[in-house]
Amino acid sequence: MASDEFSLIERFFRYGVGPGDGVRIGIGDDGALLSVTPGEELVVTVDTLVADVHFPAAGAAADIAQRALRVNLSDLAAMAATPRWFLLALTLPAADEHWLAEFASGLAEAANAYGCTLVGGDTTRGPLAVAITALGTVPAGTALPRSGAAAGDWVLVTGSLGGAAAALAEMQERGGCRAGSADLDARYWRPEPRLAEARALRGLASAAIDVSDGLLADLGHIARASGLGAELSLEALPLDAAAAARFGVERAREWALGAGDDYELCFTVAPQRAGEVQALIAAGGLNATRIGQVVAETGVRVRDRHGRWLDIAQTGYRHF
Amino acid sequence: MASDEFSLIERFFRYGVGPGDGVRIGIGDDGALLSVTPGEELVVTVDTLVADVHFPAAGAAADIAQRALRVNLSDLAAMAATPRWFLLALTLPAADEHWLAEFASGLAEAANAYGCTLVGGDTTRGPLAVAITALGTVPAGTALPRSGAAAGDWVLVTGSLGGAAAALAEMQERGGCRAGSADLDARYWRPEPRLAEARALRGLASAAIDVSDGLLADLGHIARASGLGAELSLEALPLDAAAAARFGVERAREWALGAGDDYELCFTVAPQRAGEVQALIAAGGLNATRIGQVVAETGVRVRDRHGRWLDIAQTGYRHF
Repeated sequence: MASDEFSLIERFFRYGVGPGDGVRIGIGDDGALLSVTPGEELVVTVDTLVADVHFPAAGAAADIAQRALRVNLSDLAAMAATPRWFLLALTLPAADEHWLAEFASGLAEAANAYGCTLVGGDTTRGPLAVAITALGTVPAGTALPRSGAAAGDWVLVTGSLGGAAAALAEMQERGGCRAGSADLDARYWRPEPRLAEARALRGLASAAIDVSDGLLADLGHIARASGLGAELSLEALPLDAAAAARFGVERAREWALGAGDDYELCFTVAPQRAGEVQALIAAGGLNATRIGQVVAETGVRVRDRHGRWLDIAQTGYRHF
Repeated sequence: MASDEFSLIERFFRYGVGPGDGVRIGIGDDGALLSVTPGEELVVTVDTLVADVHFPAAGAAADIAQRALRVNLSDLAAMAATPRWFLLALTLPAADEHWLAEFASGLAEAANAYGCTLVGGDTTRGPLAVAITALGTVPAGTALPRSGAAAGDWVLVTGSLGGAAAALAEMQERGGCRAGSADLDARYWRPEPRLAEARALRGLASAAIDVSDGLLADLGHIARASGLGAELSLEALPLDAAAAARFGVERAREWALGAGDDYELCFTVAPQRAGEVQALIAAGGLNATRIGQVVAETGVRVRDRHGRWLDIAQTGYRHF
């Protein structure tokens, strides 16, 4: 790390970014030195968010930071890990102090909200991009892989779908970086990583993934990793209320299937464990909806309320 | 991670990239699932290499991959950690299959040479940049921080300095991405992370850093982190033989002090432990040279053979 870059990271990000748990050496050395408790396994993931590809470059710096960290924590949630630490590789066209202060403030807010600590990183000059490496821990043997689904498993999804796409549609209509309502705006800029839900599903779900690319694509990953397929019920999809109210149910359903960015968890559970999941849902310990089942035939198919299969290629769901 | 990006990483990097030790889930899930042995601590570091800032964009793809991984492993060496795993965030202007195949081959060669495994990553479209997150482990309590130096400690450096700068100067002369000699070319494109040296220094050195920005700057980090200063002997600097032969001793010394990219280890050792280090060197177990000492007065100063202090600002050493 070049010394001036180093001071930039140190100056803006050293203090107040997360609680510091398990950190023996944090920012300011060649690497971070971290303690993993025996009996826990480590989960590591990296995601790069590029301006005007993964977020509008003109967005508020604090929002960009919030989104970048939350999106990465969502990958930890998809493995049922608890967020612990993260590293930031920030590429910036110029060292704009005001922008950096706002970015650091958004990052600190998200880090504190989810109990994780910035332990290192670097800054380089170039087109705006935010690469975060997120590290979490999970009790050994309880992580949720993509590959554990079996034919007959229920398919469920947390929360609701279509909200982030509706937010983007509103931004496009308004020609800015803010959706019209605070709810939709938060769906896009401050997606909620489903960490508590994932913890409740440790040792219970058979497979899990976060919905970053769209339900069809992401459930497709589970299906492929498990060598199987899945069938969904269009009627059962839990739609974002604001998206449905503002753009209609039909549009919201297209988004729920094809659009990404909602960062809900899609997971599967064996039929003999489904009662436990239903009990969790009934007790208010899990906000999730059954939307379909895992089948032996490969591919993901969607049935409407008349029992007809949707022609997914024709409806254009894939193009979102 | 978008699905097409995912398949790119999976297609080119899934097989043969490292030995897989401690990997419970590798590439192809939301995150990697890793086992850290009890009694070991985790070291994590990230460094982004941007084309035409940190390497010539026209360099061979295999060389770029080699350099990117080795530079990150050098940060692990500076903490005395053993490389275990890494993640790759690759930004590419286009998905050039030939380039990617070459890059993957260079990456696999370096990963296998150093016993570490690619466990995740993503690819995004944009100007060429390679961000690697490297993870290593170290027996608890034996990592080498920057902050452990004390006044009176010896200052040593491994190997030799100035070779990478000489390689860059040759490339500039020749107008290409290859130095004139294979030795110098390797100094730049395939720097040797000093992992074995760092292991030998666990529990023995008081502080360590890798020389990425230049000896003066990097020793300055140790000095500042320890609240002290350092004095170096110009005569004692171990110069890269090819650099000195090709460009003269004076130029090689300037590079040794001010140029970076050599990725040697600069470390300090308490006088009462210096005998152990000397014994290691004498026995051939450590290639290192004593170049100065830690002093109470802050700042890093260099004395010539007449005992005069160099005016570092005047000599322009800082500008390399």
